[in-house]
Amino acid sequence: MIAPPLPVRYADIEAAAVRIEGHVHHTPIVTSTRLNEILGVDLRLKCENLQRIGAFKARGAHNAVLALDDATAARGVVTHSSGNHAAALSLAARTRGIAARIVMPENAPLAKVDSVMRLGGEISFCAPTIAAREEAAARIIAETGATLIHPYDHPMVIAGQGTAARELLLAEPALDAIMAPVGGGGLMSGTAVAARAIRPGIRIVATEPEQADDAWRSWSSGVLTPGDPPRTVADGLRTTLGHNGFTILTALLDDFSTVSEAAIVEAMRLVWEVTKLVIEPSAAVPIAALMEGKPDLAGARVGVILTGGNVDLFELPWS
Amino acid sequence: MIAPPLPVRYADIEAAAVRIEGHVHHTPIVTSTRLNEILGVDLRLKCENLQRIGAFKARGAHNAVLALDDATAARGVVTHSSGNHAAALSLAARTRGIAARIVMPENAPLAKVDSVMRLGGEISFCAPTIAAREEAAARIIAETGATLIHPYDHPMVIAGQGTAARELLLAEPALDAIMAPVGGGGLMSGTAVAARAIRPGIRIVATEPEQADDAWRSWSSGVLTPGDPPRTVADGLRTTLGHNGFTILTALLDDFSTVSEAAIVEAMRLVWEVTKLVIEPSAAVPIAALMEGKPDLAGARVGVILTGGNVDLFELPWS
Repeated sequence: MIAPPLPVRYADIEAAAVRIEGHVHHTPIVTSTRLNEILGVDLRLKCENLQRIGAFKARGAHNAVLALDDATAARGVVTHSSGNHAAALSLAARTRGIAARIVMPENAPLAKVDSVMRLGGEISFCAPTIAAREEAAARIIAETGATLIHPYDHPMVIAGQGTAARELLLAEPALDAIMAPVGGGGLMSGTAVAARAIRPGIRIVATEPEQADDAWRSWSSGVLTPGDPPRTVADGLRTTLGHNGFTILTALLDDFSTVSEAAIVEAMRLVWEVTKLVIEPSAAVPIAALMEGKPDLAGARVGVILTGGNVDLFELPWS
Repeated sequence: MIAPPLPVRYADIEAAAVRIEGHVHHTPIVTSTRLNEILGVDLRLKCENLQRIGAFKARGAHNAVLALDDATAARGVVTHSSGNHAAALSLAARTRGIAARIVMPENAPLAKVDSVMRLGGEISFCAPTIAAREEAAARIIAETGATLIHPYDHPMVIAGQGTAARELLLAEPALDAIMAPVGGGGLMSGTAVAARAIRPGIRIVATEPEQADDAWRSWSSGVLTPGDPPRTVADGLRTTLGHNGFTILTALLDDFSTVSEAAIVEAMRLVWEVTKLVIEPSAAVPIAALMEGKPDLAGARVGVILTGGNVDLFELPWS
């Protein structure tokens, strides 16, 4: 059997890296002797919490917006997201000098609304349902001709997210394993494509909250399966695995671990305390897997993508 | 009038930099577009929260311990501190392979006790008074011949702390101003000596909580004045300015700002939110001064030493 070609290839990630250069940060890679002692691995933390808008999403949004031809770009871009992708798309559109129209549920947190408005995004509020969200986006597209930039399943978004792993592996070529969390699958897919191309023998490990394990169930069963409504503290991972993500993860993953809510909160607090880095719960999911030894990577040199650092400091999950 | 020679000169800081090389980190210098927008200055943050043991104190302790001759070192070192200096001295002594004896009040926070024990420091508990603390240290010195490494007024400690500003100014030679907080004065003194030597025209700005303003009162009046018992959230700044610190600050400071408790807490939260860096309240004191425009540094390129990141994540001052 010949496997079908993947929707994103390493050449797309290399092209993305060139396209977004100068618009997003080459984020630092942090090590911690103390964290290594506690977890029993040799960690390299790729700090996307220090990325522009505080999350890796700046990469994919810039790649998708900068790849548009001028005539298409002039009609603007649109997305539905209440999270980091909304801020990332607003920033990328401002970079390009075009309009970003963001469909957000009317109950979105004020901090997210503020962040989009500050970056020049034009918000359309809708009822907090998937149907209302898609209807609002469709109406904007019909009226303006704007291009929909899907938050995680757009191939250009996946390619952009893959530039984080590419930077990590070019700087740290001897990694034994690489880990990231899965929400919609954009980051994990881009990470897997980059890692397999740069270091073919690397162990590629996806991680997900037990309470939002639709991607794990899809990967395990071989059938893309929508999840139950997720109830996880990792707000960035409450989305459902996309089709392109499913295709890529099915082809490239070596391991897939799910972790408890308690482990996510404990891992998040541990990273704050030891590394002095503010990370969001989603970023703690691979660390939680290492804490629980799922999979056993004792002594290995492990790269972890710390996805972001956007948290409500008044509502910390351990307090 | 000819000014007396200062107790620490730039040559001492250069020697310290050589001595501690490889034992402490060259910490990163972070910038933030968003923080610059909010504060109206062009900031360079020297991240001593990412230093070993989570604070700049690792620098001075290593310098003092590594400067001892072998016979003296073999008798060990001693200090009285319940804070970052205790952990720093324990680490430096372990590096040298000698004993560190730490006198701590019996009501010291458990996290501080744990940290010293993990680093191999031998703790002697005493009643929580200055008399009991000095008596305990004197007894250890009499019994063992250990050398007292004062937490902030020892010239080798001051010289070690000055290496942070030296690294910052060598990496960022065009700074208009440099800021740090004052507790016992070790960091601020070392910073002032390094800054004046490397960039003579730079504006050197000390900052202190209004609720612990003994150094400000000493500097303003020209007379070293012990303070009232300090009641500030900035736990690292509850100490009293030392004699050597007083001499150096009197000679070298351009400005001295004091800030309210509310401003410290707001500045700390702002830095966490925008930069994703965990900093302790003491580190937020210069940021609080910039928030309040004391002094007015609008548009200036300002270096700030972020002193450390050791905080109790269960007891955040804004929650």
